[in-house]
Amino acid sequence: MTAAGGTPPLSGGSGGPAALRPLLDETLDALAAGARLRGGPVPPGGPAELAREVDRVLTGEGPDRHALRRLTELLAYGAADPADPACAAHLHCPPLAVAVAADLAVSALNPSQDSWDQAPAATALETALLAELAALVGFPPAAAAGVLTSGGTESNLMGLMLARDRVLGGAVELDGLPPGRRPRIIASAAAHFSVQRAAALLGLGERAVRSVPVDRDQRMDGDALADALAETVWEGATPIAVVATAGTTDTGAVDPLGRCADLAERHGAWLHVDAAYGGGALLSDRLAPLLDGIARADSVALDFHKLGWQPAAAGVFLVRCEETYASLARRAVYLNPADDEQAGYPSLLGLSLRTTRRADAFKLAVTLRTLGRPGLGALVDACHDLALHAAAAVRAEPALDLHGDPLLTTVLFRYRPATDGPDAADRINAELRRRLLHTGRAVVGRTELPGTGPGRVRLKLTLLNPHTSPADIDRLLADIVRQGREVESAPGPSRAAQD
Amino acid sequence: MTAAGGTPPLSGGSGGPAALRPLLDETLDALAAGARLRGGPVPPGGPAELAREVDRVLTGEGPDRHALRRLTELLAYGAADPADPACAAHLHCPPLAVAVAADLAVSALNPSQDSWDQAPAATALETALLAELAALVGFPPAAAAGVLTSGGTESNLMGLMLARDRVLGGAVELDGLPPGRRPRIIASAAAHFSVQRAAALLGLGERAVRSVPVDRDQRMDGDALADALAETVWEGATPIAVVATAGTTDTGAVDPLGRCADLAERHGAWLHVDAAYGGGALLSDRLAPLLDGIARADSVALDFHKLGWQPAAAGVFLVRCEETYASLARRAVYLNPADDEQAGYPSLLGLSLRTTRRADAFKLAVTLRTLGRPGLGALVDACHDLALHAAAAVRAEPALDLHGDPLLTTVLFRYRPATDGPDAADRINAELRRRLLHTGRAVVGRTELPGTGPGRVRLKLTLLNPHTSPADIDRLLADIVRQGREVESAPGPSRAAQD
Repeated sequence: MTAAGGTPPLSGGSGGPAALRPLLDETLDALAAGARLRGGPVPPGGPAELAREVDRVLTGEGPDRHALRRLTELLAYGAADPADPACAAHLHCPPLAVAVAADLAVSALNPSQDSWDQAPAATALETALLAELAALVGFPPAAAAGVLTSGGTESNLMGLMLARDRVLGGAVELDGLPPGRRPRIIASAAAHFSVQRAAALLGLGERAVRSVPVDRDQRMDGDALADALAETVWEGATPIAVVATAGTTDTGAVDPLGRCADLAERHGAWLHVDAAYGGGALLSDRLAPLLDGIARADSVALDFHKLGWQPAAAGVFLVRCEETYASLARRAVYLNPADDEQAGYPSLLGLSLRTTRRADAFKLAVTLRTLGRPGLGALVDACHDLALHAAAAVRAEPALDLHGDPLLTTVLFRYRPATDGPDAADRINAELRRRLLHTGRAVVGRTELPGTGPGRVRLKLTLLNPHTSPADIDRLLADIVRQGREVESAPGPSRAAQD
Repeated sequence: MTAAGGTPPLSGGSGGPAALRPLLDETLDALAAGARLRGGPVPPGGPAELAREVDRVLTGEGPDRHALRRLTELLAYGAADPADPACAAHLHCPPLAVAVAADLAVSALNPSQDSWDQAPAATALETALLAELAALVGFPPAAAAGVLTSGGTESNLMGLMLARDRVLGGAVELDGLPPGRRPRIIASAAAHFSVQRAAALLGLGERAVRSVPVDRDQRMDGDALADALAETVWEGATPIAVVATAGTTDTGAVDPLGRCADLAERHGAWLHVDAAYGGGALLSDRLAPLLDGIARADSVALDFHKLGWQPAAAGVFLVRCEETYASLARRAVYLNPADDEQAGYPSLLGLSLRTTRRADAFKLAVTLRTLGRPGLGALVDACHDLALHAAAAVRAEPALDLHGDPLLTTVLFRYRPATDGPDAADRINAELRRRLLHTGRAVVGRTELPGTGPGRVRLKLTLLNPHTSPADIDRLLADIVRQGREVESAPGPSRAAQD
């Protein structure tokens, strides 16, 4: 592990690649060994069992020259591996090998996007990539601006920050704001919880978010949005932003973007489109029309660590007009002094909430260049096809109850117990999911429909693995039914997961 | 690039390691080729030249199966490589090869820390690592809590968010806040600009930050802090937080932490210690005493992508008492339903501002286990020794003017032109730095001393490469002097950087 002189080797410089080679071999061997040991989508046993194993491997006096191998094997053994067809719970994609290889180059060179002289090529690459993504959304690339983010949560925060600052003039003043300027954010009941989180972080309070009803598919109702905006004004508050969701987490529903744009415009509100999930549809000719109207947004969130097959993080925040991107403009004398900018050195510092920032644009640029938009679109279509197959299979199985037709790549359903009553159904569905997880057989999603009261628990398959086959789906559904029957016939709530 | 059936291979599953192997070989070869082509710390030529090269490589119709090789070579060619001894501008470390190899495992498996069933082992590993880091800071590990962050900027935001919410009771109310509760953040004039950014993001406004004078080394004056707190109260505002800096960006100065803790306690203010840079001293027996008193903080920011040799990001946010960590508590029915938590499934969701979150804890855990604290401490000491050597060499060179003795691993100085006047000195120092960058010979830092007016521009070496030798430093300083003379003798402001 140490070079001559005892100093451990670096990943960069002229000696970096040679120093990395044996370590990467060790890592790949350990990844393979850990996956073999796991033998399925997730290791059997519960959290306590795995935590004990982690503590056992971490314990030990002094340096351990086998730490890389031992810990990597443990990480792989203890993974919920999205590359396994039976791991289909979350918007948690299996990365493409080419994206992971590109990400290695980023780790090794460690460019940081907060100044040109820490990331000369990576700065230019990010700028070029963002222009390409702006065009994908339909924004005029010359006028648009944006940045790579840690994900939809950060992108949503940025959109709402710009909306707040446009109305409230920079910083929020905590006192003396007349009632008529009290800011409100209008979002659907199925919008991501990060909208509430952003409102709280921004000092607006979660109560500043007004929730608009959705239909059964979780799509925002346009008339209900119109009413919510009118009522907000009538109540003496200011609707500073409309958040439209393009692909809700559970159903993939896309709000009526054109109507949202009309209404936001009429009220002078910022339109932020959370396309963290649905943005992947832009890669597919078949599904792109679902997002018609997105080009009218003031800002957009995209996540290529969902439908994009990048290792986390690969979030993107885009604004249609660079001029609206004022809140973060900042001069740091040690990063972007005025005379350096005059001399032609660009700075991305004013585009991000972060200072040090990994070059997450690189893996995405390599992937787009390697596969092209059609190549990525084919993967989106493959996952959509899997969802259609899964929905048909659920519909054909009397023990399962489909919630609705898939819109993107999720399928919402539940096990239908013979036992009567919504309480029992909720308990059994939650329990069967934990049992599948505990036995290491499957990682299935679980969520709840909007509203209150029992009967809302649903299972979910989030299909993001283009290598999964219809037969894999059939096996997974059969496993769910079998597990449901077992839970139902058990004498009481199982304690299996409490090892 | 594509497996049978045309679907490109994934990094996970049983086939992942085998699919990765040839791609990683290609990546390493391209990294080596790019570094050879660069031949120094940074490529010669300016931003426009490099942007043209990036556009040239990115252009092209359709998929390119050589994209990984071509773009990686370009990324390496166009890097400011911190592993080169002449790249010493920023808190931008050269990563250890072992940390980069560990980060590959994270990319390949793609665990996401927002739910246990996306990251079973990684959840347990992060929890164990944070307990170890809490102990390093001196927090009681059983009572402390924390999370990995994207860096000091995010960690500072989190500390100030908790401070705000403790005083203002959850969300800030935008109206009706009595003057006596107007929140103020007290930080030194040399605190990182992310403190102002956080205040703006949190809705407090940048003006909520009250600046305390520093001494020549950029250390906050304890009496001045006492005065600032007293005046804040006298003015009818509430000091919600004191931010103490442990290692300023430019000089590495550490504020008097014990005195800050006393004063914060007396005023009921939250004490946040920004140890993003100086936290590395905790790894070194020699330097750790500089941070005496840090254990009395309410929250702390550490960055192991600075003194820690991790690829970005490896930020850490810690609070002394878990109970104070309430703002982010959140129930998301699709991520951490109550019955799953009752069944023993832990959730880190309420600890982070993010939802999807890469397992940045892993590379740090592997590094700590591989080298041990003494192994990392030796690297910290090596960089500190380099700074001491550099300062002595600057002092011995009549053409250079040392600002002060190094406290951690930075050296602040300037080229001393024969030409009279602070304007000329500023112009020449800024210009010589751009010339070194433009010719590809060195990446040297540039900053400005606090205050206004000319004469404040300084050069800076940030020494984070433990492989750098004293002879490397001597060569770098000689290059700076030579370049200074050239700029000074040139007829007017050079246009070199405006290619």
